Amino acid sequence: MKYFMEPKSVAIIGISRKSGPGSYNLMENMMNYGYTCEIFPINPKAKDILGVKAYPSVKDVGRAIDLAIVSLPRDLVLDSVKESIDAGVKAIIVVTQGFADADARGKALQQEMVNAARNNGVRILGPNTLGIVNNFNRFTTSFMPLTREKAPVGLICQSGIFFVGASVFTGQIGKGIDIGNACDIGFCEALEYMGDDPEIKIVAIHMEGLEQTRRFLTLAGRIAKQKPIVVFKTGQSEAGAKAAASHSGAMAGHYQIHKSALKQAGVLFLDADGQMRDAVKALLNQPPMKGGRIAVITPTGAGGIMASDTLEKQGLELAPFSEKTIRRIANLSPEWMPLGNPLDIWPAVMRYGLKDVYAEAVDAVLDDPNVDGILCLGIAPELPDFAFLDASEDVNKVVPKERQKPVVGWLYGPNAREIRERFEKEEKVTVFQTIEKAAWSLSLLRERDKCLEKTSEQNA
Amino acid sequence: MKYFMEPKSVAIIGISRKSGPGSYNLMENMMNYGYTCEIFPINPKAKDILGVKAYPSVKDVGRAIDLAIVSLPRDLVLDSVKESIDAGVKAIIVVTQGFADADARGKALQQEMVNAARNNGVRILGPNTLGIVNNFNRFTTSFMPLTREKAPVGLICQSGIFFVGASVFTGQIGKGIDIGNACDIGFCEALEYMGDDPEIKIVAIHMEGLEQTRRFLTLAGRIAKQKPIVVFKTGQSEAGAKAAASHSGAMAGHYQIHKSALKQAGVLFLDADGQMRDAVKALLNQPPMKGGRIAVITPTGAGGIMASDTLEKQGLELAPFSEKTIRRIANLSPEWMPLGNPLDIWPAVMRYGLKDVYAEAVDAVLDDPNVDGILCLGIAPELPDFAFLDASEDVNKVVPKERQKPVVGWLYGPNAREIRERFEKEEKVTVFQTIEKAAWSLSLLRERDKCLEKTSEQNA
Repeated sequence: MKYFMEPKSVAIIGISRKSGPGSYNLMENMMNYGYTCEIFPINPKAKDILGVKAYPSVKDVGRAIDLAIVSLPRDLVLDSVKESIDAGVKAIIVVTQGFADADARGKALQQEMVNAARNNGVRILGPNTLGIVNNFNRFTTSFMPLTREKAPVGLICQSGIFFVGASVFTGQIGKGIDIGNACDIGFCEALEYMGDDPEIKIVAIHMEGLEQTRRFLTLAGRIAKQKPIVVFKTGQSEAGAKAAASHSGAMAGHYQIHKSALKQAGVLFLDADGQMRDAVKALLNQPPMKGGRIAVITPTGAGGIMASDTLEKQGLELAPFSEKTIRRIANLSPEWMPLGNPLDIWPAVMRYGLKDVYAEAVDAVLDDPNVDGILCLGIAPELPDFAFLDASEDVNKVVPKERQKPVVGWLYGPNAREIRERFEKEEKVTVFQTIEKAAWSLSLLRERDKCLEKTSEQNA
Repeated sequence: MKYFMEPKSVAIIGISRKSGPGSYNLMENMMNYGYTCEIFPINPKAKDILGVKAYPSVKDVGRAIDLAIVSLPRDLVLDSVKESIDAGVKAIIVVTQGFADADARGKALQQEMVNAARNNGVRILGPNTLGIVNNFNRFTTSFMPLTREKAPVGLICQSGIFFVGASVFTGQIGKGIDIGNACDIGFCEALEYMGDDPEIKIVAIHMEGLEQTRRFLTLAGRIAKQKPIVVFKTGQSEAGAKAAASHSGAMAGHYQIHKSALKQAGVLFLDADGQMRDAVKALLNQPPMKGGRIAVITPTGAGGIMASDTLEKQGLELAPFSEKTIRRIANLSPEWMPLGNPLDIWPAVMRYGLKDVYAEAVDAVLDDPNVDGILCLGIAPELPDFAFLDASEDVNKVVPKERQKPVVGWLYGPNAREIRERFEKEEKVTVFQTIEKAAWSLSLLRERDKCLEKTSEQNA
């Protein structure tokens, strides 16, 4: 994978002289992105492209080339791949669509391409791919612009939608591999690279179809001990599976079988779009959860009820508080207030103010041996007039950075975005958009812990 | 309800001389909000409050008073209610907590309060409530600040969380009634008011427990013919029901029985927090959907697969396109491209540009008799460089304002917020945060149509 992710020299075959808006010029995008390798545009009709000397053919470059990127009409691709192989190129990305994702002729062309590469020890990524993004060396083969953060998130996908839509899908991305039709480089090679990469702390996977299942499961089992692997498998339905066949040419296989096999290997498995972003947030910022007993702290009774409902749905339970915890809160509350879990702190808040009461409650349940995880419902008030209802700073003060219990939150009020940022600033509390998502993230952290427990038992 | 929603004269009992941040001074909030009624602060220790002449008792005002708002420690509430009744007040809001939501003594106090009111033809809202918000006459009894739009959304709830968190819960709110413990004014009175109010186009309800079930169902059946009623019922779980008892003192009852009875009456029923906002958006902006056959238009094959999966989960199906529709798209696509539903337009986009192709596709499926609703997946590109990938204006041009088919969307890319606003500007296309939510909203519009169909059959 090194020649794909960190090439020293790159030939760009089929690069147009057009650039600017609407040209989808991947060389232009690569240059904007801040690449540091040597690049050789290949175009028989151009002397130079974007100020870089062009060559009529990859054979004419006369230099060792790590990576060739082929972006030509499909009928010209095979010859270009063969030429690249002859020229000693070590790795090839085929961007072009219309192979196993299309018709019988496309399938045959793809097979010929693979045969040519395999006979010569050359690897192919694609076809039907945006290729690579590597924010750690500012290299990309995408013709669409991407964000540039050095996030510890490794993304493996079968569609450029997840590169372009990274902010929607994973929220952040440090390195990405779009395996497209996966004619040669597939999930195994990509996962192995991400798994062994010390810059990457979590691997997020969009999967349409999985081949080499046994190899993948063994690999996933090994890597999941070091870092979480999260899979969003599409083609769950009959209609979806049919659509997958004509997208990346993948056989979606039987969803439930995939699901149980992957979960067995320690993979965290998602059911719906929108979950990956929450999963990444939770797993990067919160510890695995050692049990299923949750403390709910809330300035609203109605929110406490909603939390109770959704925790039960997620297979979690309300922690039975220790006497010490109850005593600490009782000291702040009016006598008539029934105290329990969910812990409705509003009557105490009316007496002593939200900040102190909230911090005291969080401190109490962090210290309570009956509690495995904490769900905080909070107010996101108008600022600056109602800043006294923003508990973010006070809660952050009592939550230690190193700890065994996840602390997640949900906010209601007119200022949810800003108060969320204040809560998350110290990477101790992670805030979600709904109570359902917050509870779901706790169940995911529980699952992550179970996976690590199983591993350590197997090693014991 | 008129005395609660549009009072001409209001006594505020138990109003503190403290004001400003942290005082929760409801009179101050009422004044900031822009009230237009007469107000009479009642406080035996003050000559005036916030510049308004104060009275020692409600009896001393010597004027007809529509509404009294009582915010006193719970042991003083009953006497104050009785005094208000004696003074001829027509409606009373009890803000104070600690009644049926607390202990046996609280329950007894609440019952005495109700008895006193009923014997004298006075109505009580609460206790344990923020009361009223009415953005159409700028009146509120909430001590927390609220947004002020004249939105056509009527909210009925059992907790102030939904007033304060309206932007999170319903997204918008025009009028709101927090029935709190619902000792007298309950869901029936509130629903009747919202149902008959021409300013209100949709009624959003947060429900912990429902009494007078039969009356409510009859009323809901009548009102649902005119406008959608959406219920989010909490206390679904055993733990949640227990928490509800100690919140508003409500008996949550059996969730599944409530659910089927309410649905039978034509109410749209939600399962999770976060759905109300999407429901309101969909029902306000899109027509009921006449059937379950959906056209998916997508510039990404992977997105099409995700859409197929989630439509099936929502009980919808992929429309079998007419030959005419296929022909119109085939004219734009390369020969090798398999055409169907989901309709992957990317190969056509590479030839003719996204804007024209997207508009042509939407126009074709709008015209297709085999299609009942349209799900558009779109790109939210970097601006201004990639503005040519923003199809919002072109799609809005081909979607008529009056139509029978809902058009919903989902966006991926770095600029989702701005492109969403562009799509939604003309209130023709409604964009959701995930494909799942977009598909869910279509199923809700289908349900809304079924409810109207049933009604018209009954009337036939």
